[in-house]
Amino acid sequence: MIVDRKIVRFDSLPLDCGVTLTPVDAAYESYGELNSKKNNAILVCHAFSGDAHAAGLSPETGKPGWWDNMIGPGKAFDTEKYFVICVNVAGGCRGTTGPSSLNPATGKPYAMAFPTVTVSDMVRLQKKLLDHLGIDRLLAVAGGSMGGMQVLEWAVRYPDCVASAFPIATTARHSAQQIAFNEVGRQAIMADPDWNEGNYYDLKPPARGLAVARMVGHITYMSDDSMKEKFGRRLQGKDGPAFFFDDTFEVESYLRHRGSQFVDRFDANSYLYITKAMDMFDLAQGGSLPAALEKAKARFLVISFTSDWLYPSYQSLEIVSALRSRNRDVAYCELASNYGHDAFLVEVDEQTELVRGFLARVFKEM
Amino acid sequence: MIVDRKIVRFDSLPLDCGVTLTPVDAAYESYGELNSKKNNAILVCHAFSGDAHAAGLSPETGKPGWWDNMIGPGKAFDTEKYFVICVNVAGGCRGTTGPSSLNPATGKPYAMAFPTVTVSDMVRLQKKLLDHLGIDRLLAVAGGSMGGMQVLEWAVRYPDCVASAFPIATTARHSAQQIAFNEVGRQAIMADPDWNEGNYYDLKPPARGLAVARMVGHITYMSDDSMKEKFGRRLQGKDGPAFFFDDTFEVESYLRHRGSQFVDRFDANSYLYITKAMDMFDLAQGGSLPAALEKAKARFLVISFTSDWLYPSYQSLEIVSALRSRNRDVAYCELASNYGHDAFLVEVDEQTELVRGFLARVFKEM
Repeated sequence: MIVDRKIVRFDSLPLDCGVTLTPVDAAYESYGELNSKKNNAILVCHAFSGDAHAAGLSPETGKPGWWDNMIGPGKAFDTEKYFVICVNVAGGCRGTTGPSSLNPATGKPYAMAFPTVTVSDMVRLQKKLLDHLGIDRLLAVAGGSMGGMQVLEWAVRYPDCVASAFPIATTARHSAQQIAFNEVGRQAIMADPDWNEGNYYDLKPPARGLAVARMVGHITYMSDDSMKEKFGRRLQGKDGPAFFFDDTFEVESYLRHRGSQFVDRFDANSYLYITKAMDMFDLAQGGSLPAALEKAKARFLVISFTSDWLYPSYQSLEIVSALRSRNRDVAYCELASNYGHDAFLVEVDEQTELVRGFLARVFKEM
Repeated sequence: MIVDRKIVRFDSLPLDCGVTLTPVDAAYESYGELNSKKNNAILVCHAFSGDAHAAGLSPETGKPGWWDNMIGPGKAFDTEKYFVICVNVAGGCRGTTGPSSLNPATGKPYAMAFPTVTVSDMVRLQKKLLDHLGIDRLLAVAGGSMGGMQVLEWAVRYPDCVASAFPIATTARHSAQQIAFNEVGRQAIMADPDWNEGNYYDLKPPARGLAVARMVGHITYMSDDSMKEKFGRRLQGKDGPAFFFDDTFEVESYLRHRGSQFVDRFDANSYLYITKAMDMFDLAQGGSLPAALEKAKARFLVISFTSDWLYPSYQSLEIVSALRSRNRDVAYCELASNYGHDAFLVEVDEQTELVRGFLARVFKEM
């Protein structure tokens, strides 16, 4: 199933920072059909390095979407019943306006002149697009990692528009450790002379810095156990114990490969802006989490994974406790998995069971 | 107490890789007095970024040594009773021969022409120094992290020379995750154009790459909890929630500061060589850990820390189980701490209790 990306241009998007983006493009994909009541729409929100290509095959790369195992006919988000939509985030680099887009004021890419974007801005752009499509209320908003932050933001920002919310492997705010890992990535990019204060669009991109940033990311997405299973201490093209300096462990070449691959599909300035948006995200906005979540009216299904040390279960439990303290409708499931943070992308079977049943019940009440 | 660093030059040191270093300098410090029986000597082995300055004040910087809270009169390693010695490792950059040392063949620094060093080479150099000082048998060998690897190596390589061994917060071999974190640091250094294939000694060092490498290190040395306690989500010079792109979290400026500080005291090429030595270390050398540790005759005190996720307790337990399976004398203690891997440097009280009693018993039998 080849899926085309669509782009809608809006005149403007006012941002939290006070600047208004004019114009702003929203790139999205959709799967399934919107029914006549327009009450079967599900918004799926992508994680930091994802994009609108959530399912099906890309006509450009031929590759399946990042949640293709969860979205499709008969799958968790069943496209025979539901209309699923995914939007590239504001500040991104895959069709939606971001730092690599042309700044109409200068006719050149924004680069670091791009205004600060927040998770709330990302959600506001998605809302604009749904208004444009005539969708008043979502059957569900779902997403993992930074996608889960958008889910939480949707639920409290537009409570009447969200029937159910699935924040997965996420948090209501980043811890110091999560900020620290993102900061290392940003510093790696900015340490690369090719970054050139963000002005590299007509030169060469900061490929080495971006690759190092991605390597750090990959370590945090896996678990100690899953790395052990996948690589152990095996050497690239050599048997026996490692000894000499030019011995390369498989895990080293894997990380280098994933790092350099990333450079072809991601913009370094978007990396800076989006990771900063994640770090700045604080659902409670300095207040209490229960007070923030009290605004939500959705039915929540919160999911975390045992071996996810980047977004540990205690962060999901904070969300669950806050919801329960205000008598909100919430189910919580910690799934056993060795895959670390990546689990939300790969643990399909148990997530499918949970999501399918939950969606069916909510849809009945729409 | 100002402590002077001493340097002893040896004609040669044959390395595991087949190359012989000629000559080789060993930089060391010592604290307390060697008794007439020469049976009160304790070798303390430093971690990756440490050096011979383990205790007292440096005449150069005025700073205390890295284990000053554990070494001194009345402390865990009581210098009124024991003679404590610490040697900068082979491949290091603090007095012992390493990549920044002059290559006698060229009259220029070795740089990447420096031969591969291993943990076993580090231990062999220490043995040379102890022979030089007339010390046949050590009351104890102690160290944390990479220091603990040297402890293990001593115990199996020179079983008759080690009465007791204290491997702390360490492992018999790096996991894929530990290798991966080291590899990110190496890649960050090598991505810096100033690294220049290692030839930067008469130019400027790869300061940005080395700083990024150090930032990654610091995150892995702390725990999620200790970062939360130390920084939380506090902003540098601002109250209220983070909002704009130029808001800086305290944890970000801390990491940047620690990164740039490191550049002044550490050589980037040593970073490459020493982290590689850690990654290549495998006490079992491809065989079984019990078979390797069967050679040891020392009494072991193995210590790990609950929140140390870089060198998790299960790695210490592998060592303990292997020793027990061969009926070796081993005590194991997992200490409760929030400090992560740094705990071995800062959790003084409980370590002191354990080490003091253990040392006293072993000394009685010397």
